[in-house]
Amino acid sequence: MTIFSERVQNGALGLGKVGQVVRLVGWVQRRRDHGGLIFVDLRDRSGMVQVVFDPEKMGDGFAQAESLRSEFVVSIQGLVIARPEGMINPNLTTGEIEVVANSFDILNGAKTPPYYLVDQVDVDETVRLKYRYLDLRRPEMQAVFKIRHQVMQIMRNFFDSQGFLEIETPILTKSTPEGARDYLVPSRVRPGEFYALPQSPQIYKQLLMVGGMEKYFQIARCFRDEDLRADRQPEFTQLDVEMSFVEVEDILPMMEQLMVRIFGETIGKTIAVPFPRLTYKEAMERYGSDKPDTRFGMELVDVGDIVGKAGFKVFANAIASGGSVKCICAKGCSSLPRREIDDLGKFVSTYRAKGLAWIVLAEEGIKSPIAKFFTEEEMKVLIERMAAETGDILFFVADAYPIVCDALGHLRLELGKRLGLIPEDALNFLWVTEFPLLEYDEEQQRHIAIHHPFTAPMDEDLHLLETEPLQVRAKAYDMVLNGTELGGGSIRIHRRGVQERLFSLLGMSEEEAVAKFGFLLEAFEYGTPPHGGVAFGLDRMIMLLAGKDNIRDVIAFPKTQSASDLMAQAPSTVADKQLKELHIKADLEMPNI
Amino acid sequence: MTIFSERVQNGALGLGKVGQVVRLVGWVQRRRDHGGLIFVDLRDRSGMVQVVFDPEKMGDGFAQAESLRSEFVVSIQGLVIARPEGMINPNLTTGEIEVVANSFDILNGAKTPPYYLVDQVDVDETVRLKYRYLDLRRPEMQAVFKIRHQVMQIMRNFFDSQGFLEIETPILTKSTPEGARDYLVPSRVRPGEFYALPQSPQIYKQLLMVGGMEKYFQIARCFRDEDLRADRQPEFTQLDVEMSFVEVEDILPMMEQLMVRIFGETIGKTIAVPFPRLTYKEAMERYGSDKPDTRFGMELVDVGDIVGKAGFKVFANAIASGGSVKCICAKGCSSLPRREIDDLGKFVSTYRAKGLAWIVLAEEGIKSPIAKFFTEEEMKVLIERMAAETGDILFFVADAYPIVCDALGHLRLELGKRLGLIPEDALNFLWVTEFPLLEYDEEQQRHIAIHHPFTAPMDEDLHLLETEPLQVRAKAYDMVLNGTELGGGSIRIHRRGVQERLFSLLGMSEEEAVAKFGFLLEAFEYGTPPHGGVAFGLDRMIMLLAGKDNIRDVIAFPKTQSASDLMAQAPSTVADKQLKELHIKADLEMPNI
Repeated sequence: MTIFSERVQNGALGLGKVGQVVRLVGWVQRRRDHGGLIFVDLRDRSGMVQVVFDPEKMGDGFAQAESLRSEFVVSIQGLVIARPEGMINPNLTTGEIEVVANSFDILNGAKTPPYYLVDQVDVDETVRLKYRYLDLRRPEMQAVFKIRHQVMQIMRNFFDSQGFLEIETPILTKSTPEGARDYLVPSRVRPGEFYALPQSPQIYKQLLMVGGMEKYFQIARCFRDEDLRADRQPEFTQLDVEMSFVEVEDILPMMEQLMVRIFGETIGKTIAVPFPRLTYKEAMERYGSDKPDTRFGMELVDVGDIVGKAGFKVFANAIASGGSVKCICAKGCSSLPRREIDDLGKFVSTYRAKGLAWIVLAEEGIKSPIAKFFTEEEMKVLIERMAAETGDILFFVADAYPIVCDALGHLRLELGKRLGLIPEDALNFLWVTEFPLLEYDEEQQRHIAIHHPFTAPMDEDLHLLETEPLQVRAKAYDMVLNGTELGGGSIRIHRRGVQERLFSLLGMSEEEAVAKFGFLLEAFEYGTPPHGGVAFGLDRMIMLLAGKDNIRDVIAFPKTQSASDLMAQAPSTVADKQLKELHIKADLEMPNI
Repeated sequence: MTIFSERVQNGALGLGKVGQVVRLVGWVQRRRDHGGLIFVDLRDRSGMVQVVFDPEKMGDGFAQAESLRSEFVVSIQGLVIARPEGMINPNLTTGEIEVVANSFDILNGAKTPPYYLVDQVDVDETVRLKYRYLDLRRPEMQAVFKIRHQVMQIMRNFFDSQGFLEIETPILTKSTPEGARDYLVPSRVRPGEFYALPQSPQIYKQLLMVGGMEKYFQIARCFRDEDLRADRQPEFTQLDVEMSFVEVEDILPMMEQLMVRIFGETIGKTIAVPFPRLTYKEAMERYGSDKPDTRFGMELVDVGDIVGKAGFKVFANAIASGGSVKCICAKGCSSLPRREIDDLGKFVSTYRAKGLAWIVLAEEGIKSPIAKFFTEEEMKVLIERMAAETGDILFFVADAYPIVCDALGHLRLELGKRLGLIPEDALNFLWVTEFPLLEYDEEQQRHIAIHHPFTAPMDEDLHLLETEPLQVRAKAYDMVLNGTELGGGSIRIHRRGVQERLFSLLGMSEEEAVAKFGFLLEAFEYGTPPHGGVAFGLDRMIMLLAGKDNIRDVIAFPKTQSASDLMAQAPSTVADKQLKELHIKADLEMPNI
């Protein structure tokens, strides 16, 4: 029995403990001297409690109390007393009591921290990252990692109870870049050869299905050497799941149940199941996005049939050239200043739209540069179609279909935010299904897989694979929450022939396919069961649950957008000996490519 | 509802299901044709069941059944019937029933596997590793991963219930080689700089303690680029635990409780707690090992006081030069042929012992080349000390103390095995404590840390740090099971001054210490709590639980001893473009160092 094992949690103290002598440990949040007494807010992971040092009760020990500063680590023995009525602190869970110290030890001192460790700090993030070990002490950071822990346990218990096996897949894997850039690890034993860190356990989990494991999950570390956007990290964590002998209908309801548990048990939210489903086509049609935020309306409406025959060239030409014209109705925005409307025009141009047309339904009548091109009848039908009323604005984009959807989809979101249409508390889950299998990448001049090259085509579209590849839908699905993709997955290809056809469509030669994925193709020949699964980004889910908009706030030791660890100072130079052993040389003369 | 969701587990079928029509899926283990019927053993993760295809009941479907081969994947609908008395198969859990197929589908075909997938395969391991996805189908492999899964869940539930937070630490970290070689990852953003894969999360978990997380655990992937011994892998998994405000006495009983749960819940073994404890000194003294196998006796006994004064020069010189003479008594081995005794002499010489002396207590009297050097009285005292009887042999090693312990300790284990003294079923757990903090490495000509450089010295030895560093004991402990180290840990240094003294003792200059561990030293100045923890090798624990003596059998996708993945063919060459982006060049001209 050590003195530490007697310790009680600071945050657990309350009126029930009054009269007891307790052992506390923790950090000095702050010290105040008042009326000859010293008051210390003592913080541990569980919370904060006020400790009083009284020279009359402590004798010589009081002198030591005068040395206490913020972030000193102390062990205190003291008596819990009720605070007098006027002194109760309703902001503190332990605010009804305080602890009068009998004795204490300073377990460690502390220099003055570079910033005061409280919630809502206003400090440059580089300072917070450099002193990550201090930043983690702030209660709001501790709350994040409690949620993160909780979510991981819920996931594991959920899959464990359903007969899944947690199986670890390798981190030192083979480089098969298809999409993002691999992190490489030079082999010492085989000079000139490299391992790659996995972008996901995709192939290994499929091989576990070939291996008869039937139900697999892992909370897996994944790596991508990409230029980082605000919500990306070079290493990130994903919930990775794979099952044999399943179809889409087996997977979706299961993942919904997992969400019910996670959101219920961590933040007390009730989630209705089943989730609504939209096909990719519907999602693009109505929301201009494959991850629609359905917390508000303002849906995209096709008006090509009405406006395509009118006299406005821009609309007519778009329709004539196979494009489309879509419209959204911004309710009650007729007083939007012209300047702001022009701003929105610039906004859509960043999404490649050549322009934004508008019709204001003002009290005093219709105001619009394009109104003159429409007959009264056309205008009436248009207004009816859009269910528009006096006080609204209609916005139009006319262009190739993907541009129309994308530009208006973003405009819809932008207006939703600007107009305060988005109920912050709502949790709108939905599934998007029937994604296209492929898209054409202009830059690479070839088809690329929208999910990944192992996604199965829908059976009814398989015959189109070579003739109309862009028409082929995939057995793929994404779970979307409030416009954010939480995760997704697919039923996978489980026959060598189909997989080879797909590799070929992606522009891979037979030799290349065998060099990269030969072991998978061969595996498919030895009795591979039908299988499918999902991958969910853990970091993003924690951001949503903890209400953080910065991915670095939900990772214990994150990296900056230039992939540096500011605390540990990684990456760093290494000893020559290390490079020699690996048979590599840094080549700093080489130009950047 | 898909057809798959109706599926029942093959292994769950029994007399209770007789008369029911069930949907089964799985792999054909084997097919036998008999009396116009086709019998198939259908295997899934849960077990095996016999399916009968009867042409009279299937009509046209029967023809397709004739195409079934081993490892075909099928979905079957059929009627469960009881087997006639004489046909019951007691070797199969489902042996009392069989399923008469009504209809079935071949979900996928299979080429003939490179070997027949049964337990106790006698196939070259390279074949098993190349076709890992087939090898994993064997029931004994599936059993391993069920245990591995179970152990991970038990660990997590255990630590979760005790208030620990599971926190992920980075895989892309800073290279600070101290001990083993780091795997390096070139940075693309900062040419010429490298990340290292972590050898353990040691520093990060300590920084989590600095960060006020108080109780941390993780089942963490670790990496060491070492030439692999049979029981090592380049990447391995460890249970990693750290706690603040603890002493040794808080950690040991907790880890014992974890073992009670793991061994109880996975293999049904009851483990007595508390575990016996031996100091390092006692362990060396009595067993010649810091991980003693206490499943049998034959302890080492110091006999220097008896034999050091006798006329045998080898013994006398050893004592005179500060060494020692120790003896073990091999019970009932007096008839051991001289050749085997000579063999044992060679055996101890591999542990640097210059010789092995022996005294046989035969029926016909004492036989020994060295007996003549002892007086009758000396011999009597010796035999008494060793509790030796007629029929025993006494073995002696005289040398420097560490060599005596090491050589006789190994001889003891060897004799234990050869003589069948080790009860295979016993589980002898124990703790070894009070390890030396440092040892002197002749090759590097400097002190090195026995555990790691962050281990705290025992308070009572701290004053010896500079004057008698090899005498300083550490607050370190190892858990040993049957002579295997399961894991270990320590209370850590939590003050900058002590950590600096230790780095200096390890031969690190101040600049070097700051360059490598500056962030840790700085962290210690901002209120670091006392803390400590443990790390347990998961792979080795699974080997013990699953009764495997090859680490590759407990890792889903292991690497060979030359660190290759024979299935995925990693490491491999990569595209020039990838190396250019990383600003590195393979330098194959460079000689091996």
